[in-house]
Amino acid sequence: MAKTKKAPRPKAETPKGFRDYFGVEVTERAEMLRKIAGVYHRYGFDALETSAVETVEALGKFLPDVDRPNEGVFAWQEFDEDDKGDWMALRYDLTAPLARVYAQYRNDLPTPYRRYAMGPVWRNEKPGPGRYRQFYQCDADTVGTASMAADAEICAMLADTLEEVGIPRGDYLIRVNNRKVLNGVLEVMGLDEGDQRDAVLRTIDKFDKVGEEGVRALLTEGRLDASGAYIDGVGLTHAQAKPVLAFLTSKSDDAAETLANLRDAVGESAMGADGVQELEAIADLLAAQGYGPDRIVIDPSVVRGLGYYTGPVYEAELTFEIFDDKGRKRQFGSVAGGGRYDDLVKRFTGQAVPATGVSIGVDRLLAALREKGRIGGSVEGPVVVTVMDRDRMAEYQAMVAELRSAGIRAEVYLGNPKNFGNQMKYADRRGSPVAVIAGSDEFDAGKVQIKDLVLGAQIAENATLEEWKERPSQFEVPRDQLVAKVREILDGQDG
Amino acid sequence: MAKTKKAPRPKAETPKGFRDYFGVEVTERAEMLRKIAGVYHRYGFDALETSAVETVEALGKFLPDVDRPNEGVFAWQEFDEDDKGDWMALRYDLTAPLARVYAQYRNDLPTPYRRYAMGPVWRNEKPGPGRYRQFYQCDADTVGTASMAADAEICAMLADTLEEVGIPRGDYLIRVNNRKVLNGVLEVMGLDEGDQRDAVLRTIDKFDKVGEEGVRALLTEGRLDASGAYIDGVGLTHAQAKPVLAFLTSKSDDAAETLANLRDAVGESAMGADGVQELEAIADLLAAQGYGPDRIVIDPSVVRGLGYYTGPVYEAELTFEIFDDKGRKRQFGSVAGGGRYDDLVKRFTGQAVPATGVSIGVDRLLAALREKGRIGGSVEGPVVVTVMDRDRMAEYQAMVAELRSAGIRAEVYLGNPKNFGNQMKYADRRGSPVAVIAGSDEFDAGKVQIKDLVLGAQIAENATLEEWKERPSQFEVPRDQLVAKVREILDGQDG
Repeated sequence: MAKTKKAPRPKAETPKGFRDYFGVEVTERAEMLRKIAGVYHRYGFDALETSAVETVEALGKFLPDVDRPNEGVFAWQEFDEDDKGDWMALRYDLTAPLARVYAQYRNDLPTPYRRYAMGPVWRNEKPGPGRYRQFYQCDADTVGTASMAADAEICAMLADTLEEVGIPRGDYLIRVNNRKVLNGVLEVMGLDEGDQRDAVLRTIDKFDKVGEEGVRALLTEGRLDASGAYIDGVGLTHAQAKPVLAFLTSKSDDAAETLANLRDAVGESAMGADGVQELEAIADLLAAQGYGPDRIVIDPSVVRGLGYYTGPVYEAELTFEIFDDKGRKRQFGSVAGGGRYDDLVKRFTGQAVPATGVSIGVDRLLAALREKGRIGGSVEGPVVVTVMDRDRMAEYQAMVAELRSAGIRAEVYLGNPKNFGNQMKYADRRGSPVAVIAGSDEFDAGKVQIKDLVLGAQIAENATLEEWKERPSQFEVPRDQLVAKVREILDGQDG
Repeated sequence: MAKTKKAPRPKAETPKGFRDYFGVEVTERAEMLRKIAGVYHRYGFDALETSAVETVEALGKFLPDVDRPNEGVFAWQEFDEDDKGDWMALRYDLTAPLARVYAQYRNDLPTPYRRYAMGPVWRNEKPGPGRYRQFYQCDADTVGTASMAADAEICAMLADTLEEVGIPRGDYLIRVNNRKVLNGVLEVMGLDEGDQRDAVLRTIDKFDKVGEEGVRALLTEGRLDASGAYIDGVGLTHAQAKPVLAFLTSKSDDAAETLANLRDAVGESAMGADGVQELEAIADLLAAQGYGPDRIVIDPSVVRGLGYYTGPVYEAELTFEIFDDKGRKRQFGSVAGGGRYDDLVKRFTGQAVPATGVSIGVDRLLAALREKGRIGGSVEGPVVVTVMDRDRMAEYQAMVAELRSAGIRAEVYLGNPKNFGNQMKYADRRGSPVAVIAGSDEFDAGKVQIKDLVLGAQIAENATLEEWKERPSQFEVPRDQLVAKVREILDGQDG
């Protein structure tokens, strides 16, 4: 028999690695996602919402020879008597559920299937500063077509989306590259696989940091880094390194010129030529729709995450400058990325299905909108109707009802009304723009006091009603002008 | 060493008890929740979004003497070397996270704290028809005030919410009762606790079904039911049963009369009198805001879920009729319910905090809107631009870009364009209102064919382009009138 013990009080704590979102944090994200969904809808993408839970089998994160699914996911075993229930897990992205859904419903879904999905995903990882174990993703994918028009469409949609949520043209750039081009370059270098190939790929990743000459040195004999340490080179000859450098420096302001440079870099490689042709097709399609290089560019330096993709890759970069933690200016950077991948459904059906898609970093984009002052400006606090006389509660309620009917956010103070200062502190905490005050004097005279809290000085803790009334930011108006006066003050605050 | 074996293909299946939501199922719910959030916002309620995951300790579902949390929740143990990690679980409602948040942030939150929350919750229960293990909840609660104004406010907000989402006045009724009134009735009957009290409560629950005389018989000597079986009574005398019957039949069209009847029914009970007074306060507050008995009524027959609540309880009932599974007419019924509860935060802090709140049954309300024809009418399929000539893809893309710029949902067919019939089948599957057709003839002539698919007959599988062109629902217009003509057809379809 188990011992009976008094349970201690539970701790009121957000679980480690998770967080709570309050007020505008919730509504601003919802509003941004709604705008994004509007653009996706206009492009013919359909919403899909799968459950948070998938079988570990379908997620593909199950290692068949260990008892416990690997650490990346939150997983548990379904209870049954023999302890042989299925392993279930929280989805870690929105792509794995799409693969499952497409395989499951492929006979009923249109082909190609354009779908978007928005929602939280979960990662069973060590949390760190700014790294949470639950966060939002926002994906759009087209499944079932190899046409470059699908890739071009997603790039155009991404540009439209950024403008729709409030990133002005000129402050973003969609950069497009193709995995096959780099593969072609490596092919002509005789680096189809192996350690040296991996070393070359790692070196290419440093292009943004060390530039052309740095990469040239690192691909060949090595170089001294800024700290004076000698970094060994990959050991290529300068002739071998040439196609890589041609690839990395191929970008021109003119798309046709960039493509010509790339064609040179891939030389005889059929795969490389294929990649250049795909880029050309995308560039033509985008040009026909009026998406010029001020919005979307061919840029061979897009290398991030290339390993996952099989053809075109694209990235949305915000080009305006912000100050980093150390006060240095830098570009805001990437807020979305994606590309073409082919084995989405193969795990389930054995058939390869081509697909291409993009994922927006929801928190990154929200942070960008905050940087640009597009959101986070106003707290949208309610008008607070204070309570001077408990027995008049019905009359205070009638006031807020009138304000709400006029579309004004309003509430009656429902705490203990005894200390008026507490009511004003409450209004302050609520971010209220206006307080309404009416005691028996006002009711007898058919009047009401309306206080502009934005104009007014900061709330003193123990101010008396009389002190408040003397402030110039307070107005006495006839009761039937309550809504009009509040509206006038709110309009003035907006201006 | 583990044996190496080839993993079989995973099954592409929605996990048991879960479901996938497609297209309008997602967007209609999102739109309804957005409208609800708008009303809640206007009433001064702030959004709160907690993570899906809570510690089992905070959820309060952990049985301290067993290794495994009880079955109602999906739970797992955090991994650490000693297997002593915390137990985590998916939230099973939105109230338990509110309790945790209020306890955790009580010094920073305004008091009272009005918050709303919307999102999925999870139940580890045996799934059944229409019963899922993940579903949406939509809650609004006011924490930290015992004022009846908080309860009245939520009733008014509920009425406004139903009208906002599309339930017209007259098709719903908010019914308000008070737990203390029934307790008072039982107190004057000498039934403070025990088996007989429970039997009386069960009998009260049957009032809707068996009526006044039926309840009278069941409370006393028993009765024959419809099938001819004799149902034993609770064994009260007719004098004892009188207050219960007075309570159950106290409802009048006039709130004052209902309250007077209830005052009679509770007799000398202080608790009962308290309950009646609370109902009276709510009725007065609502009357002052113009919420009459056509929207909100005092109704002592609201008994469901009374056990959980400590004071006022309220329920939103949709009064229009639908046909049930057996073709019988019945009222649509309840879509929301709530009430006052006091020990929300006590588990964490030891202090009782008064709270009152409502939960809307999201799926029920969506079903009601579907019944009323408010949603689900149009599939919102995109205009499909078909592909007659693969090499003209850029020109087809330019067409959809123009349509989208005009706010029209549009897409290019991106499947294999070889079989035109397949393109029209695709358009059918997408619910497209309009198809755009342009081959070399049209391009040479600067024209485009526009087909009204709603007007047109159902799509024949192997129709040729020529057959399609002969249909009267197809129009040839100059290329530069594409958007105007499509708009004209869409407007005609709406009308």
